[in-house]
Amino acid sequence: MKRNSKDSELRERARQVIPKGMYGHESVALLSEDYPQFFSRAEGAYLWDCDDNRYVDYMCAFGPNLLGYRHRGVEDAARAQAAMGDTMTGPSEAMVVLAEDLVSMIGHAAWAMFCKNGSDATSMAMVTARAYRDRRKILVAKGTYHGSAPWNTPNIKGITAEDRAHIIYFNYNDLDSTADAFRKADGDVAGVFATPFRHETFNDQYAPSAEYALGLRKLCDDADALLILDEVRTGFRLSRDCSWSVHGVQPDLSAWGKVLANGYPISALVGSEKARSAASSIYVTGSFWFSAVPMAAAIATLREIRTTDYLERIIANSTRLRAGIAAQAAAHDIPVRQTGPSQMPQILFDDDPDMRKGYFWAGFAVRSGVYLHPYHNMFFNAALTPDDIDNTLDITDRAFAELKRQLPSLPAQSNELLLQRLGR
Amino acid sequence: MKRNSKDSELRERARQVIPKGMYGHESVALLSEDYPQFFSRAEGAYLWDCDDNRYVDYMCAFGPNLLGYRHRGVEDAARAQAAMGDTMTGPSEAMVVLAEDLVSMIGHAAWAMFCKNGSDATSMAMVTARAYRDRRKILVAKGTYHGSAPWNTPNIKGITAEDRAHIIYFNYNDLDSTADAFRKADGDVAGVFATPFRHETFNDQYAPSAEYALGLRKLCDDADALLILDEVRTGFRLSRDCSWSVHGVQPDLSAWGKVLANGYPISALVGSEKARSAASSIYVTGSFWFSAVPMAAAIATLREIRTTDYLERIIANSTRLRAGIAAQAAAHDIPVRQTGPSQMPQILFDDDPDMRKGYFWAGFAVRSGVYLHPYHNMFFNAALTPDDIDNTLDITDRAFAELKRQLPSLPAQSNELLLQRLGR
Repeated sequence: MKRNSKDSELRERARQVIPKGMYGHESVALLSEDYPQFFSRAEGAYLWDCDDNRYVDYMCAFGPNLLGYRHRGVEDAARAQAAMGDTMTGPSEAMVVLAEDLVSMIGHAAWAMFCKNGSDATSMAMVTARAYRDRRKILVAKGTYHGSAPWNTPNIKGITAEDRAHIIYFNYNDLDSTADAFRKADGDVAGVFATPFRHETFNDQYAPSAEYALGLRKLCDDADALLILDEVRTGFRLSRDCSWSVHGVQPDLSAWGKVLANGYPISALVGSEKARSAASSIYVTGSFWFSAVPMAAAIATLREIRTTDYLERIIANSTRLRAGIAAQAAAHDIPVRQTGPSQMPQILFDDDPDMRKGYFWAGFAVRSGVYLHPYHNMFFNAALTPDDIDNTLDITDRAFAELKRQLPSLPAQSNELLLQRLGR
Repeated sequence: MKRNSKDSELRERARQVIPKGMYGHESVALLSEDYPQFFSRAEGAYLWDCDDNRYVDYMCAFGPNLLGYRHRGVEDAARAQAAMGDTMTGPSEAMVVLAEDLVSMIGHAAWAMFCKNGSDATSMAMVTARAYRDRRKILVAKGTYHGSAPWNTPNIKGITAEDRAHIIYFNYNDLDSTADAFRKADGDVAGVFATPFRHETFNDQYAPSAEYALGLRKLCDDADALLILDEVRTGFRLSRDCSWSVHGVQPDLSAWGKVLANGYPISALVGSEKARSAASSIYVTGSFWFSAVPMAAAIATLREIRTTDYLERIIANSTRLRAGIAAQAAAHDIPVRQTGPSQMPQILFDDDPDMRKGYFWAGFAVRSGVYLHPYHNMFFNAALTPDDIDNTLDITDRAFAELKRQLPSLPAQSNELLLQRLGR
């Protein structure tokens, strides 16, 4: 029995004092009314909304929850540091230990700098790449999200043409298009951004070919430009190193965030020796970038990453869910596309131009206590158990059955903002 | 007896894994060797470095510590929230309450948006101002720090001309120069940034005239441009409202950070009704912007601000220190300039081109357990007692005496980075 009276009250109050009632990636404006906007509690793999409805949470705070909410080891480390000090007049020993840990864990890493937002890390990467050989052009795959700073935010309201004057766009996983962008830059390429795989909202996800990753590395080397891997969304969910290490490709810079401290606010720019002098030459800082508690939490998180089978469990459980959903979709004859790595799945429905099928299916799950997302990639965490997966599959099976039953009369999508977003 | 063996060891390790060994505003590269780089503990008005030397801390983490480190009420609120949840798949009720609190406390406020860095808030203000009437030009007082984003960082390494193509500079507190900037923009002014007073490193601080504040407000109104007050450094240390409320001047947007949660990482953009629609039209977000713990800490901090005499105590204690130092400087016949509000003092020495006097005096204090800064404005917190001030004055008196004794043979400044910074 889902209640939402508190959520309705909070939404109404929020509309008074927050623009649009909510902003950013955690706004539910594009979702159906099945989705709560406000949450009160989180533990392990579960989340409670402000009306005390419980969910198995497949969004993980849009990434940060890697080990389970309120993970004992991370919380203990954070609490111990908080008893000493957090934001002080200088950094603590934790900052050095954390940088040492990242350098020891990440193949290309010779150094690390810490910040707060994923956008901080990607913007610092951009500035570092420009400082490297005093060049200007930054190559970015068309339509890729690298944060909401003016040079990359997907909404151009309030953005000037000059904010992107030196960004050159190419097609992801298309070596010819990328080589073209290099040629256009005419010797002025400072750096090239890449996400480990393609993970844009509303779209099927896909991995680039090994050939592309290797080819991009070579293009950068030939031009003496820096290859920047944006691991903010993917970090430590695909690999314990940079995600392209499977292809034998190491970037010069990598941007990390989200999972780094299992939910504590910290992000990082990590670089190779080659980029150290450039990183040393720029000026970036933030009021809370040197705070000790998120660093202590990150040290504990990285220890779990190094010493446990968290990743193998996440892969096993997410593979189990994917296989189960695939079987259900086939049994109900409602084709879905499950794309991207199973631990960061995107689930989209075939023949669903206004997304009414996907919204119905995911909304049914949400009403039944399983938080699935209809247009953003989801995230697995290590607190999920095979039982959670099986319980989830019970619900998704009922969701498919109900969708099948209602399909002939399924009402058209009515969310105006969504229809706008879909260009309909 | 000051020890620094641990600090030396950490600095050496940091040089391996962090560019320059440290970056940003908490790097001590421009300071003398009297200053520790790493800290281990903070409580109330005190700070311990990693070698367990204790300091009365007049930097307050460069601002955030307003009520005293590890303030009981704030810590209790944060701990209670942490036991429920922090970074979740959506915001918590705390976000609404916090926005309501700010709206009730800040004269011009109709809404609030939360972020992490001061730079987030100022950059969002810039983008909002541009979205307001679809204009481009942003007016900024020459040499003013509004954060380290490419459009404003004081170091132009890695920055392109286009990052500042639409920034027009004027002289602070100079209405003619400001009006000139409006004319130069030729109808394209989106917004004007102002700090409540002038607080640049290495420089005497000063307040603008009431006439300037009023005149700037009128210039903005006449041009239908937004007035943006950058309260990141000053917020709640000068006033319980925006700092220019004393002049009867309300901005359209104000940027807050640092003290907002007494050290927990959160910043905010606050706006008037007029700016709501523009703020609603932009896309900004961050992985940790909706986390509940810093919001709970902020709610508790704002309650202290509303219900206690923290500000009056800070003003009384800082006035006491200023008077004491002025008397000592006169008695020792070593003129100093104490500028800006007493609760955010800058202390510079007359006739001190390479800062050898100021560095000797502040360095003596640091070695004696009083953390004073020679070139950055300092900050008072509410945990400081009259006894702390008197103990500090004992030390500063000895520092003046020793400076007087050594003055004839005081060695020239030897910090190369500082000499470079001073243009010498």
